Parts: sequence; C-alpha cells; structure tokens
Amino acid sequence: MTTAPTSNWQAIAAFKRQTLASKIPAEWRLPASQLSSFSETSTLSALDMPCSCNLLTPRELDITEKYDATALVGLMLEKEMTSVEVVTAFCKRAAVAQQCVNCLTEIMFEEALGRARECDEFLEREGRGMGALHGLPISLKDSFNVKGTHTTIGYVSFINHPPAASNSVVVDMLHRAGAVFYVKTNLPQTMMTADSHNNVFGRTLNPHKLCLTAGGSTGGEGALLAMRGSVLGMATDVAGSNRIPALCNGTSSLKPTAGRIPFAGGVPPGRLGSPSSILPVIGPAGHSVRDYELVMKTVLDAEPWTFDENAINAPWRTVEAATRPLRFGLIRGHAKRPLHPPIARTLHTAATQLKAHGHSVVLLDDQIPDLYENAVLAWKYFLLDPQKTPAKHISASGEPWVPSMAVTSFPELAGWEASLDALFDMNVERAKVLRRYREVFVDSELDAIVMPGYQATAVPHDTFGVPIYTTLANLLNYPAGMLPFLKAEKRLDEPFFEKEAQYEPQYNPDVVEGAPGAIQIMGKPMKDEELVEIMKVVETILAKEN
Amino acid sequence: MTTAPTSNWQAIAAFKRQTLASKIPAEWRLPASQLSSFSETSTLSALDMPCSCNLLTPRELDITEKYDATALVGLMLEKEMTSVEVVTAFCKRAAVAQQCVNCLTEIMFEEALGRARECDEFLEREGRGMGALHGLPISLKDSFNVKGTHTTIGYVSFINHPPAASNSVVVDMLHRAGAVFYVKTNLPQTMMTADSHNNVFGRTLNPHKLCLTAGGSTGGEGALLAMRGSVLGMATDVAGSNRIPALCNGTSSLKPTAGRIPFAGGVPPGRLGSPSSILPVIGPAGHSVRDYELVMKTVLDAEPWTFDENAINAPWRTVEAATRPLRFGLIRGHAKRPLHPPIARTLHTAATQLKAHGHSVVLLDDQIPDLYENAVLAWKYFLLDPQKTPAKHISASGEPWVPSMAVTSFPELAGWEASLDALFDMNVERAKVLRRYREVFVDSELDAIVMPGYQATAVPHDTFGVPIYTTLANLLNYPAGMLPFLKAEKRLDEPFFEKEAQYEPQYNPDVVEGAPGAIQIMGKPMKDEELVEIMKVVETILAKEN
Repeated sequence: MTTAPTSNWQAIAAFKRQTLASKIPAEWRLPASQLSSFSETSTLSALDMPCSCNLLTPRELDITEKYDATALVGLMLEKEMTSVEVVTAFCKRAAVAQQCVNCLTEIMFEEALGRARECDEFLEREGRGMGALHGLPISLKDSFNVKGTHTTIGYVSFINHPPAASNSVVVDMLHRAGAVFYVKTNLPQTMMTADSHNNVFGRTLNPHKLCLTAGGSTGGEGALLAMRGSVLGMATDVAGSNRIPALCNGTSSLKPTAGRIPFAGGVPPGRLGSPSSILPVIGPAGHSVRDYELVMKTVLDAEPWTFDENAINAPWRTVEAATRPLRFGLIRGHAKRPLHPPIARTLHTAATQLKAHGHSVVLLDDQIPDLYENAVLAWKYFLLDPQKTPAKHISASGEPWVPSMAVTSFPELAGWEASLDALFDMNVERAKVLRRYREVFVDSELDAIVMPGYQATAVPHDTFGVPIYTTLANLLNYPAGMLPFLKAEKRLDEPFFEKEAQYEPQYNPDVVEGAPGAIQIMGKPMKDEELVEIMKVVETILAKEN
Repeated sequence: MTTAPTSNWQAIAAFKRQTLASKIPAEWRLPASQLSSFSETSTLSALDMPCSCNLLTPRELDITEKYDATALVGLMLEKEMTSVEVVTAFCKRAAVAQQCVNCLTEIMFEEALGRARECDEFLEREGRGMGALHGLPISLKDSFNVKGTHTTIGYVSFINHPPAASNSVVVDMLHRAGAVFYVKTNLPQTMMTADSHNNVFGRTLNPHKLCLTAGGSTGGEGALLAMRGSVLGMATDVAGSNRIPALCNGTSSLKPTAGRIPFAGGVPPGRLGSPSSILPVIGPAGHSVRDYELVMKTVLDAEPWTFDENAINAPWRTVEAATRPLRFGLIRGHAKRPLHPPIARTLHTAATQLKAHGHSVVLLDDQIPDLYENAVLAWKYFLLDPQKTPAKHISASGEPWVPSMAVTSFPELAGWEASLDALFDMNVERAKVLRRYREVFVDSELDAIVMPGYQATAVPHDTFGVPIYTTLANLLNYPAGMLPFLKAEKRLDEPFFEKEAQYEPQYNPDVVEGAPGAIQIMGKPMKDEELVEIMKVVETILAKEN
C-alpha cells in the first residue's frame, strides 16, 4: 500500500503505523524471535534489550547510559564525542525501545543525523557550539509541532492533517540552542488518561514490566527515557502528564510554573480558549535535575515572551545552591486513595533520609484542604467545554474510546455539566485552596512539600484511575517535580500494608514487584529556580539510598 | 440624628454623608460664602481654594505643593519635617478639597495624626525611619479596606456593613513601610463608569473646572491629587480606573501588570470568582513617576506573595535608567472615537518632542487590531456574571442607577448575554489581539507605545462614555501609565479640528477650555520596571514643554 487509505479508521491507523515502522532502518530491526514474548500481558522487563540485542556498540551503550544531557553537551563541546555519534546512538536505542515498548509516534532519524552533522560542522568551523544544547538529541511528546512532521496526538481523525507548517515555540527555541530532534513519543487518546494508549499507535508498555502502564499522558516519553533511548525529553502536564510517566518509569521530571516555558504552537487535544484556571505546562523529563535547569535557563534566557505572548515575561533568576537545612512539608495521602505499601515505604524512607541529613520535615496532613475534593474540583476545569471537542475529534473517524477513559473520571462528576455560574463558584473554591497552601507554606516556613506522586507504583494497564496527587500542583499552579526512589519489594513493603485500607486500584504485591517508586516535590509558585536547587539536594540524598 | 436610619435609602445615605462631614474639624470648615458658587454646573476652578481660603499656613502650602512623595520621605528622615507636620498639612488640604469637589468617602484624620506621632517617635527613638514610606500620608480609593473603617464603595446597601475587620493586603504592606492613611476617596456606583458618582457620597467634581467630570472609577483620588490634598494615592484599574482620573485631573498614574501589587483584601463591586481574562490591578497615582517606583519597589521587596496567593511571586528587578534613544510606537486613535483637537494636539506635540530628543516614533495605526472591537471584547468580560451581582447590590437598597451608567455601554452589546461557549470564543479572540501586540512590539523593536488615554480631555458630567483607549492595556495586561501634558486651548487646538470627524462625545472648545491633556504610555507585560524608567524619560521631556 503506497497511498493512505481514507475509508475505515482501522485501515487509516494501520497505514500510519506502517509508515512509522518503515522509518526504522532495516539494520536496526530486531528479529521477531527476540520480541515474541513481549506483550502487554507479559511480566518481562525490556530494560536489558538495548544491551542484549547487540545492536549498539559498546561506545553507543556508554553514550546512552553513562551521562546526563549536561555532561553530553560538555563532551561534545570538548570534542570528546561528535553530535553525529551521540545522535546515532540515541536513534538506534530509540529504535530498539520502539520495538520493545511501542513508545514512538514519529521518527526523524534522517533529519536528526543531518542536523547533527550541521552541529559538528558548526563547532569545527566556528570554534564554538551552536548554543547551550549544542548537538544534543531531545525527544518530544507527540503534541509538539516539528515543521514537516505530522502531529496526530493519537486521534485517527488527525492523521490526514498536513504536516506541521512550523515548530512549536519551545521547539524553535531549543533548536536555536543547538538541540537535535529525532523522535516524537506516544500519548493517550485525548491526553487525559494515564495510559498512553490510542487507536493510532496503540499502547506504550512499561519497560520495567510490560504488563504495567507506562503512565501518561507523556508515557511514550517516560518509557523511552527508561530505556535510555532518550537523555532528555519535553513533556506537557495539566494533571500530572509529565510526572506520572516519571513515577511509572523510574525517571524524573519537572513541571514548572505555567507560562515559564512558552506553550504556544503545539496541537491541543481539546478546544482553544478554555477559561480554565488550570493551565497546561511544558516541562522537561529525563535523568537529572541539573538537566532541567539547563533547559529552563536556556529557554528563559532567550526571552520566550518575544515568541509567545502567553509566556511570562520574567527572566530566569540565578539563585544560590541550597546549602542550609531545608524545611519540608510532608503530605502522606488521603483516605480515599491510601498509599500502597511500596509508595508508603518510599515516602517514609525519603522523609527519614531527609531528616537524617539535617533537614526538617513537618507533617501537613491535618493542615491542608481535602486532597480528593481538590482533585474533583480540578477535574471540573477539564470538563468546561460545552462542545466536548475531544469527543468530536474521536467521532470524526469512527474510532472507539480507549478503555482507560472509563476509569479516568470521578463518580462525583457523573452527569455534571459546566456552566458559567458554576465556574464562578469553582474559582471561589479554588481561591480558598490557593489561600490555604500559601498560608501553610508561609506559616510553617516551608521550602517545599514532599508528597506522593500517586498512591501506587505503575499499576496494570487501564487501572490507573484519577491522579489526585499530581493534580494538586496543577490546581495550585505550583511547580513540582518527580524523583525516582526505591522499588516495590514485597518483603520490605509488607510492614506498610494496612488491613483496613481500601486500596484503589487493588494492591497486588506480586504484580508490581520491581516497579519503580518515586516521590513528588512541590515548590512555591514562580520559584522554579529554588525548586530546582531543592530537588538537587533531594536527588543527591536519595541517590545514596537508591 | 445620632443613630443610623434603616428605612429609605435617601435617609441612610444622608446619614452617612453627615457622618463623613462631621469628621472635618470645625476650624477646617470653609464658610458657606466661599463655596456658594461651587456646583456641578459651574465653570469655576477649585485649584486656588487651598491657598485662597487661608486655612493652610505658608509652610503647609509648601509641604503640600512643592514636593513629591519621595522628597517628603527624605525630608522627614532628615528631620527637616515631622510626619505630624506633613500629615496635618495634607489632612487640612484634603478637608478643603472635600468641601470644594466632594472627593472623599472616609476621613481618618485623628487616626492619621496618631500614626504620624508614632512615626515621629519611632524615628526619634530608633534613629531610623519606619520604612521606605516613613511617615508619608497616602490616600486610598474607597474600595481598599482599612481596619476599623467602613468600605461602602458607594453602594447604599453596603452602608450597614460592619467596619473592615482587617486591612487590604497592600494597605498592610504600605503601613508596615511607614505609610499613614488619612482619607479614602470617592468612586462611581459599580466602579464601572468614568463619573465618580454614587448615591451615597454624590458626585466628585473636577477641580480644574467643576462642570467637568473628575473621571473614574478612582475619580475622588484624581480630584484630591489635583487639589494637592494628597501626594500619593492608591487606585485600582480594570478598564482605565487609575488612568482616566489622572487624565481628567492633570495628574499621573501607573497601572502595573496585574498581580505585581497584591489585590487581595479589598471590597469588590461585583461577584468573586469571575473567569474573566481581564484582572483588576492596583497601582499608584500622584505627581511623579519616581514615586510609583518607590511604591512598587517597596511593596514587591516585601514579598507580596507571602500575603496574597494571587500576587505574582516574582521580585522587583533593578534596571538601568533608560539613557539610550528609545523606540516608541504611536497609536493615533480610532475613527469611531476620533481625538478631540486638544488631545490630538497633545499627542502630536508629545511625539514631536520625543523625536526632538532623539527618540524614534513608529506609527502603528495600520498595524494593530481594531481598537474599538477590542474594547467591545473587553466589555464582554465585565458582563460575565449571570447573577448580575452589582445590580443586586443596587436593588438591595432601592437606590437608582446613577445617570452615567446609561452611557457606559456599547450598543453592540445590547441584550448580549454571556455563556461558557461564548467565553471560549472570547478567549480565542483575545489571544489574537495579544499575539498581534506582541508581534508589533517585537517586530518594530519597541520600548513602549504612546497613545491617547481617551479621545478627549475631561468632558461634562455623564458624557464620558466607554473608554476604548485605556481598556486596551487591561485586555492585554500590559502595564500603562498616564502623564499630564498641555491643556485644552482653543486657539492652539483649532488647527487639529477635523470637519468630517464624528466627535463622541461632542467637542465643545469653550466648555473644555483649560482642561488638562495627557498621554498614555504602554509598556511590555511584566516589564513594569522598564516602563517606569521610560516614563521618567518622557516625564522629563514633557516637563520642558508643559
């Protein structure tokens, strides 16, 4: 088949998948025998595949495994590595990841290698790098536009859209700083579930254990990062989309304050012009907090407001490294979504370690508004569109809803319809939550809040449900990051099991055994600079224990 | 009558006015003979009254006339003046202003003198001032809360509300910096007309010419400042409320980017929780741009976010004085609201002077979206409340609407009812306007835009209409300031008369003769720091010509 079908949605989607698959060079394809046991019901891990498949050279394994983005840029500028070498290594590894966990939506290997050559030649010729991200491969969530590449965001009805005529603003800015784009990554239908699953590209699997969710909405990114098929990715987050995949895949991420990274120029899953008080946020995901600082500083130093009128016209501030003892608030969860033992242990151990290193931890559970109610409120903001635009995008092709949509809703909101009158009241309710958290931060002189990112580790596909622990930072518009810590280990988790707890989803120690744990750290609004420094401190402490 | 009536609204309002009048000490009352010819139809000026009434000593006249706030604070810190002296002088002068132009709503002379003594004693005892505003009298629009004082905002139904239990956040912050509050000032019913007129306090008159409007909604402040009964006032602005009074009264003002000065803790004229994309903004008004910098820096240095969760948690930046040639965009108006000859001359002369001083001026009229349509869009945001709360506040007492409400609406919006669906579309329309202005600023490398603040000088009462030229900066959330420049002078204005122009309201050269002119300067969002420096440059240039 050489021309795209226009008839039934299955054929249209299949053609798109074939086009994607054809972008993997024949010599990078894994033999079917190596993949035969990989499926969404398998308990296998895919993490060893990049090494065991023998496709990558030892140097390519080194390049993809041993460095963070900051280090790679440094090595390229010092001419220890070329961008062509680095980009080739990540292209190969991304190709392997795609074949194992189905994490990609667009492959731009050829364009990337051309761009890498450009970077190498520039450095050779000019004696300086292209910018702060010189020659660095960066992966992108599918919703970002890359000129000449499609942006389907998993809607079958978007497959026949023309390729993007221009880059998203942040893509342009990263490009000017020397970045190389080589893949876009998978996400859920509507971008509003935590299973990165849609009818165009199918489902992304968790590399740690294929039967578990890779999270969402930036799940393709999370899985690719876990496979080290990327060193740095760009994600979006309106309810946890950049933090849930980090939690599920044992990587890390930062959701900054809204508007610090320019949001313009991508493809939205819903209607433009929402009066929602919750704004979608772009942020980086990857393996080290200093990489997020690199991205934030690079973008903000280039004056994003001059390219996107909704970017906050305020510079990145240089702040001191956090060397004094810090004060952390600790949120231990909500009775309606009690922490599964692995996460209870993770959070407990993290708090213990922070105290052991001289930091203070203040328990906040009794001081904060009802987390569950706050999440219900947040969810209302996602349901404001009377035209229900995402449903229209779905019905336009005849494709069905993906299964996880059924569990990603609050029973409290069944039949709820938004109105202008309700929106006034929602804003008043939100104002109270904002006020209380400001008071908590100020009264307890907190530097940040440590809390779960979800009540569990990654869970089986289509069971994740509503993310009450990440949504809080979106409702507040506070910056928040996710840091990986420990793993589900039933022997150690057992003391944290509580008989009376109504675990939701179900806790099955054998199923999640080995799944990564994580903690979430939430900072003060607009103090992304300070949060980055705090996250560095925590990252260092947790690394000692991990 | 010693107890408040509860029967008809007229009696309730009359009692409130009597209470207000009783706060002026007998020895500061002007003889009826001096005021007999003062009325809202008089063409007299009240500007000479503070001098001619012989109530103020020569030193008090000096204190109130010769300095800006920055200078007064300096003189108090150097003990050239005491706070008691300064506050007494402004109390006296405010009392005179009130009797001439009816600009006050609350009088706190006693409390103010007590506070001034505190400031003087503190300085004596501690050898340092209370803060950056040590001992400085600051006047407040009535909508600010001052603990123990009433906040009626001109609604009869609010008269029986208890006194404020706490200060507005910014009032608290100014207080901590050493400010002294002595009066609150008049505003219009609903705060949404440009005539500061309500059924509680009546109408504020323009000191330059009593038959002209003092502007609104911070018109009491504007009139008081023009009478030099205040050196620095705090205002709010959602469609021009801090800039229109400056224009009408020949004073100046700054509307910063929303959220830089904390807004919390005042009394709103409508419903809380509006999903409007246009946010009300607090800013300073007075006589010199450096005073606005003093207020901004003082408030922002004290970390407003720690007191108001909606304050932008970003510090005041120290920027260099603008010494290089600046690039100004110039907007000369809209055909539906052509500039009256005095303002056309004012704007032309200002642009000419800027060029004469080496700055560039780029004509923008053909590059910008339709200003009138933008104002209609902005007005829709003010009409979002399905419960029409301001109307409820009015009907609660039986008071009638003030006459100016009838002219403060767009015929295009007759019968228009807001909906959630319409709000999405409004936001999309607004996004286009935002985008275009960002492009204009960036493409033309502008530092600021110079434009009219209104199509005319102050006009006769109840004829001001809708303020399309100020509303733009609210729709965009760009900071903007007003600077006084020239005066209506029919001989000089005549060449600027255009026969075909449909002047709206009517242009009557004799009626407005002598009314102050003004220009508006609009900067980039969040670049309030830079706008202040640019306004200083323009202020200096215009002062040479004034």
